[in-house]
Order: sequence, then C-alpha cells, then structure tokens
Amino acid sequence: MPGPDPEPFRIPTIEDIRDAARRIAGLAVRTPLLHSPVLSERCGRPVYLKPECLQRTGSFKFRGAHNRISRLTADERVRGVVAMSSGNHAQGVAAAAAIAGVGATIVMPSDAPAIKRANTRGLGATIVDYERGHDDRDAIARAIALRDGAILVPPYDDPDIIAGQGTVGLEIAEDAIRLGIELDQVVIPVSGGGLAAGTSLAIRALSPRTRVLVAEPEGFDDHARSLAVGARCRNTCRTGSLCDALLAPEPGELTFAINRETLSGGVVVSEREVARAVRIAFHDLKLVAEPGGAIALAAILAGMLGPGPGAVVAVISGGNVDAALFSRLIDPGQENSAS
Amino acid sequence: MPGPDPEPFRIPTIEDIRDAARRIAGLAVRTPLLHSPVLSERCGRPVYLKPECLQRTGSFKFRGAHNRISRLTADERVRGVVAMSSGNHAQGVAAAAAIAGVGATIVMPSDAPAIKRANTRGLGATIVDYERGHDDRDAIARAIALRDGAILVPPYDDPDIIAGQGTVGLEIAEDAIRLGIELDQVVIPVSGGGLAAGTSLAIRALSPRTRVLVAEPEGFDDHARSLAVGARCRNTCRTGSLCDALLAPEPGELTFAINRETLSGGVVVSEREVARAVRIAFHDLKLVAEPGGAIALAAILAGMLGPGPGAVVAVISGGNVDAALFSRLIDPGQENSAS
Repeated sequence: MPGPDPEPFRIPTIEDIRDAARRIAGLAVRTPLLHSPVLSERCGRPVYLKPECLQRTGSFKFRGAHNRISRLTADERVRGVVAMSSGNHAQGVAAAAAIAGVGATIVMPSDAPAIKRANTRGLGATIVDYERGHDDRDAIARAIALRDGAILVPPYDDPDIIAGQGTVGLEIAEDAIRLGIELDQVVIPVSGGGLAAGTSLAIRALSPRTRVLVAEPEGFDDHARSLAVGARCRNTCRTGSLCDALLAPEPGELTFAINRETLSGGVVVSEREVARAVRIAFHDLKLVAEPGGAIALAAILAGMLGPGPGAVVAVISGGNVDAALFSRLIDPGQENSAS
Repeated sequence: MPGPDPEPFRIPTIEDIRDAARRIAGLAVRTPLLHSPVLSERCGRPVYLKPECLQRTGSFKFRGAHNRISRLTADERVRGVVAMSSGNHAQGVAAAAAIAGVGATIVMPSDAPAIKRANTRGLGATIVDYERGHDDRDAIARAIALRDGAILVPPYDDPDIIAGQGTVGLEIAEDAIRLGIELDQVVIPVSGGGLAAGTSLAIRALSPRTRVLVAEPEGFDDHARSLAVGARCRNTCRTGSLCDALLAPEPGELTFAINRETLSGGVVVSEREVARAVRIAFHDLKLVAEPGGAIALAAILAGMLGPGPGAVVAVISGGNVDAALFSRLIDPGQENSAS
C-alpha cells in the first residue's frame, strides 16, 4: 500500500497540466474560447468567454477531480473517496468516481443549491450534511476518511486538483495562439484558488505577458486582501452571498503559494453586479451562469479592467443554479439587461 | 443601377458557402461543435451540439443576413433594406444592416416575443407590425420595398441567404473532420428551410455519407409531409405552437428544390417534447434555447433517430426566448429534467 504523497504541497508544472489534459481528453468537454461581439462592442476591446458552465457536471471541477481520481491505485479505488464541497466539486468528484467505478462520499453544506445536491446524488455519491458557518467540514471529511479508509479528494489544496483545473488555462492559451488572439487579461472567479492557480500556471507558461486576475464577491474578498498584503487573510463572513460557490473562508495554502506569484491582483464585485451578469448571460449570451460563475463576467461588465487594445477573457466557471433563483434573476421586471 | 438578380433561384454551390464564410469571419461567432457527455450517455451514441444560440443576435440568422447585405451595391445601401421575420431574421438583418450602415425596416408579427422585438429595435431597425394568420407579410414587405426603393432581404428563399446559413454546415463538417468525428446524422430545426438547405448542401459536399434531417412542431409538419410526397405542402395552422420561430406556412420554393434532394426526412416533435428539451438544455447543458431552437435536440432526446455507432449533431438554432416563458419552462415544479 503506498504511503502518503511525499510532496503533498509540490507546485504543479506545465507538464503536470499537459498530463492532466491527456487524462481528461474525451471525458471532459473541451470548452470553446468563445468570442462575444456584443461584449466586445460594449467594452471597446475584444472580449472572449471560457464557458466552463458547458463542462461536464456544469462546472470546471470535473477536470481536477478526474485528474486526481484517475491516479488512484487499485487498493485506493476499493477504499473509495471522500470530498467536502459546496456543490460543484461534489458533482465533479461524483462524476469522476462513477467513471472510475469508485464509491464517493461528499460532505456538503445543508444550504447548498438543490440542483447541486440532486445532481451529486444522481451521480451515485452519498451526501453527508454539515451546517455552514457552524460545523468544521474538514474535520467531518477527515473523520470519514479515517473511518472508511477513504481517500480525501480536496477541493483545491492538492497538486493533482490544481493541475486538472489548469487545463482551463492550457486550453485558453492554446486556442488564443491558434486563433492569433493577443491575450491581455484573463479574469477568473476565485474561492479556494485551485482554478486560479492552475490556470495562471498554464497561462504564465504559454502566454507570459498575459495578466491573470481573480474576481470575488463583496464580503468574501480574501484573495484581493491576501494578494495586497502578501499573506493569507480570512473572511469574516461565512454566508450571505448569492455566490454560493465562492465562500471558502480563506485562500488555500498551496494555491496561495502559487497565486501570490502568478496573479496580478483581485477585483471585488457587488451582489448587484453579479445578478446583472447572470441576467446579461441569459439575455445576450444565451449561457446559463450561476452567480459565482458569472463574477468574472460581472467584473468586465462593471468596467473594472479598464481600456486597452488586447483581448480579455472571462472564465464562466459554472452554471449550476436552481431554476427558481435563475427565474428571479432574469425576471424582466428587474433592471433591463441593456442598461 | 443594377437590375434584379438574373438568377434569383440559383442553387448555391459549396464555393458560395465558402465565400460566405469569408465574409462573416470575425463578425459572426464561429460556434463550437460541442460534445455532450451527458447526452451521449443518455442516447448511447456520441451526441454533439451546434449551439447557434451563442451566435451574434442569438440565432444563426446573422450569417445569411450579413452574407446578403454585405453584397449590396453603394446605390442599394442608400435605399436600405426591408425584411419580414418572426424575430430571429429580424435581428440578423438589423445587426447586419447596422454593420453596413444601412437603414432597415422589419415587418414583424404582433405576437413576436418581446425580446425579439426589443433586440431588433435596439439594433436600430424600424418595426412594422402585422397580424399573423391575417395579414400578408410578403405583400406588406413588397409594398415598403416599392415605396422606399428598399432592397428586400428574404428570410430563406434567396441564394445568398442560403449560402450564409450554409456556413453552419461548413463549420460542422470542418470541425468533425478536424476532430475525427464520424458524422452519422445532423438534425436541424426547420421553418422556411434556409438553414436546412444551406447546411445540407455543405454537409453533402464535405461529408457525403452523413444524413441530414429536419425537425418541426406537431401541426406545422409541412416539411415532413412535403418530403414524403415530393412536393410542397402547406400547414393548415398558422399559430398555436411554442415554437414561434418555426411557423412558416410552407417550405420555400428554392429551399425545397434543394431540400428535396439533400434531406433524408423530417421528424415531428410534440410541444411537450420541445418544452422538455428547453428544460434539459437549461439543467444539463447550461444553454438557453428558445423552443423552436431546441426542437432538433428534442427529437434526439425523444429517441427519434434510433441507435447507431456514428455521431449525431443537433443544431440549436436560436435562444431568443422571453424570460417569463423561459422561467415557466424551467420551473422545478414541472416534470423533472432527469426523467
């Protein structure tokens, strides 16, 4: 039986990301780098989207989960996996575990969107509830891992997870090169920082002049503050944002060790701007974005990136939003999308 | 001043479609050929989507409109254009006319979705209303053309329009070749038949063993019946389907001259199946499809294509749906998407 990873906090290389790309090929969707003429005209510069809402399980999370789970040994497969997640990592792990024929237990907050819970269960995983802001989800997951001998699949602080999410950046950079797009800025929704870390590593390797920024909700701006001071800061809020996917209490340890070197900064977006981005994604882009998934788009729409001739890319990180909330957000009685 | 087109009913060639592709490049979105692991597993064969809802103006119609309008002479540009449309061609013409700096008047049914009317007006076009099932929209458009000297941009019965819509098929075939996908069937929503004609011409030229089928709503199955008997049949209904974009009274003359040779048949889809496809596009694909735009997807979900090892492609032709209707269609109180 193999021991624990000798380098649990090693920083993935571009070769690790390329290896993840080979593992997910044919199973994950190679999402397009999608030009938006409407947003480009609105913003006065070329705007592209990386719509990971179109990814298997409706978010980028399948990439990292499959990269990790496909590396389990035969012994580890028998023991199964356990993960803690607000819902998108849950679905990614459940889907990857189902493909690998591995049992999965997911520790989820009781206030997770119904669609995320239903999809996770529909993929065959067992859900264990916890109260957000009250229970320690890490401790619950570790206890299950101890009890069952299950392998913990962390949501972000893991080299294989980061390398898997990094395939988002690899695809963005490869497509930009193929299409002759000069990439100025890539903006990424951030919570624990795994997508940001992997993507920024790939972008730095393939397109070193491109700046990578993260976007996060007001009240949950741990990355913006951490990047400003060069050390991890915690959020005081634990709940209370539309962006249910972006409520990690602080940047990850490994992810921040990467992101403090690779990111150019963080922007903070209001709830109102997030809601408007979800609405514009519906009306003008015909994409279903969940609030947290739309926050980089919201930052661009709010003019936070400033002018410039180069192209900007907003990663739309997920689209798992309950129909009732989505209906309220797109309701025509609200602020007009064209405003 | 140039006279009328000497060959108004010429059948476009693959070179005409390639020329249209060059004209729309950089202005239209090159929509992806999007693999759906979820639909592939559900259908037991590879399923791909061609999401033209992600196209500029939210439907494929910009392709044909720009191909036609970009060919106007200087004299014709001054006179402006006039078009009749239930809403998607309206937006395509309005956008193409705005790019060309040409005035546009659109004859639209008074019951067109609010989003289609608002977007058409937002793109700078003038709207003239008519009553669907009562007024003769062709006569109204011709009268405006006579009065203003404006150039008529037909919704489908025009070689340049058909060649422009054919870029959908060109992109599908090119992407399938690049990705090594064996294309068995392509299913296309049909109304007047322009998208079907252009796409089937391109597919036949590049992928001659692929069958192309059309999908249409119950009560508006003029193509299925016309293809079966080899002559154009009319619908008796004029209104009363969710699929507001698919209510043309009969196949076009030029489009049917093409489609009777290129299409393998037509499938007829119930309103309930269309509604379910819109809901599944929201829940599982994260795409906003309007009812008519989702009808080929509905045909695949309803198992109408049968089994087979080759890949099937559903063209999602548009996503311009009012928020209120969309909210009703995705409402979680209705039939579950996973059923």
